[in-house]
Amino acid sequence: MILAYDGAGFTGSQRQANSRTVQGELENALHKIGWTGTSVLMAGRTDRGVHAAGQVAAFDFEEWAHPAERLLRALNAKLPADLAVRKIQPVHADFHARFDALSRSYRYRLFCEPIRDPLRERFAWRLLGARPDSDALKQNAEVFLGTHDFAAFGSPTSEMGTTTRTVTRSEWKRKPDSEWQFEVRADAFLYRMVRRLVFVQVAVAQGRCSVKDIQLALKGQGILIAGLAPAHGLSLIDVEYGSLKR
Amino acid sequence: MILAYDGAGFTGSQRQANSRTVQGELENALHKIGWTGTSVLMAGRTDRGVHAAGQVAAFDFEEWAHPAERLLRALNAKLPADLAVRKIQPVHADFHARFDALSRSYRYRLFCEPIRDPLRERFAWRLLGARPDSDALKQNAEVFLGTHDFAAFGSPTSEMGTTTRTVTRSEWKRKPDSEWQFEVRADAFLYRMVRRLVFVQVAVAQGRCSVKDIQLALKGQGILIAGLAPAHGLSLIDVEYGSLKR
Repeated sequence: MILAYDGAGFTGSQRQANSRTVQGELENALHKIGWTGTSVLMAGRTDRGVHAAGQVAAFDFEEWAHPAERLLRALNAKLPADLAVRKIQPVHADFHARFDALSRSYRYRLFCEPIRDPLRERFAWRLLGARPDSDALKQNAEVFLGTHDFAAFGSPTSEMGTTTRTVTRSEWKRKPDSEWQFEVRADAFLYRMVRRLVFVQVAVAQGRCSVKDIQLALKGQGILIAGLAPAHGLSLIDVEYGSLKR
Repeated sequence: MILAYDGAGFTGSQRQANSRTVQGELENALHKIGWTGTSVLMAGRTDRGVHAAGQVAAFDFEEWAHPAERLLRALNAKLPADLAVRKIQPVHADFHARFDALSRSYRYRLFCEPIRDPLRERFAWRLLGARPDSDALKQNAEVFLGTHDFAAFGSPTSEMGTTTRTVTRSEWKRKPDSEWQFEVRADAFLYRMVRRLVFVQVAVAQGRCSVKDIQLALKGQGILIAGLAPAHGLSLIDVEYGSLKR
């Protein structure tokens, strides 16, 4: 199933004791409609405050004797307002939401405004300091394309895990109302990697460091400016699979 | 001053005992920076859940010895995340935020989607039922232009108050992603009037009643379909004044 959520009210995607999480709310709703499983598997882990329009979750539900379309409606009737199932389809029993995913796509929204804007800041970072140079954003984004060791841009997702990732899309778009959006796709991401990619690119576009520093960091050299873009500008927008085994 | 707020967390614009209101939060913040007044006056009353990008509030603040620009920053530092001052300027002592306003402008956002969408529904009504006819929305909106008795479209704002209003703009715009926006401007509005205008126009565009019913209702005849569009699709976007007396 494809999930969308407003991340503001969740501690993150993965179940945690005593916290409101996407997985926890989803499992609660499933239990209410007769599911007897114990755990739903999600394709991408999103941090506290991160949104999703295209998160993928998979689970067994042999108890369900009706069409998938009815499961979507039944679940949405039980889920809270900030979490919804957007699409649902049966897959083969050996489908694995995480390991079968070929890539993940994220979008990061930011805007420049000297004054707070409560109607936009739920889903976008209001950038302080110098206005970023649009050309710098657009040109420098290409530096991440390809296979690199991203150790300077995030933490491995498992102990002893590799920090090498392959980025297949890295692009800034200029939007109306002083907004910029970063779209990035990779086979997988390190923890906090997108927020770090955004922060570092903005630092370059504001003249606080240089694209040379990024190039060196991708070779494991030099020291890169510290910092993370805030979670609330980030959305997981898609998880891509090959042909789905049904 | 011009205020913007995300209405989801407020009981409405006007102060009420034991409720979180825009006026209450604004007055609290003003008190924290040395204001000794008792009441701020707001140009338009917005209901529980209604947003604003251009609400106007006025107050005396003789204690403030610094430039207006510093007041904006000081206030925004004290206000909660869902409420911000967007602009501030001194006006003449006899300026009245409500009586001096020549008109108010509202925007209503709605979209058609069979499935819940947590990333859009905070600021837009997800319309159920038939997809509205775009041409019907655009053409019928003109029926409200001019001076009419809007008694069938809202309640007077004071006891014995008139229900005659002059609408100077009434227009639907088609937006991407199955979205429509209604923009309306009038000298003043009755309680719930914009939400009622939207509901009735959508009913016509879905074929549930006819524009004739609206025309009759504007003449005080017939019975118009009951109902209100939900508050969370509505934003007060502007309050227009003549040349501001400084």
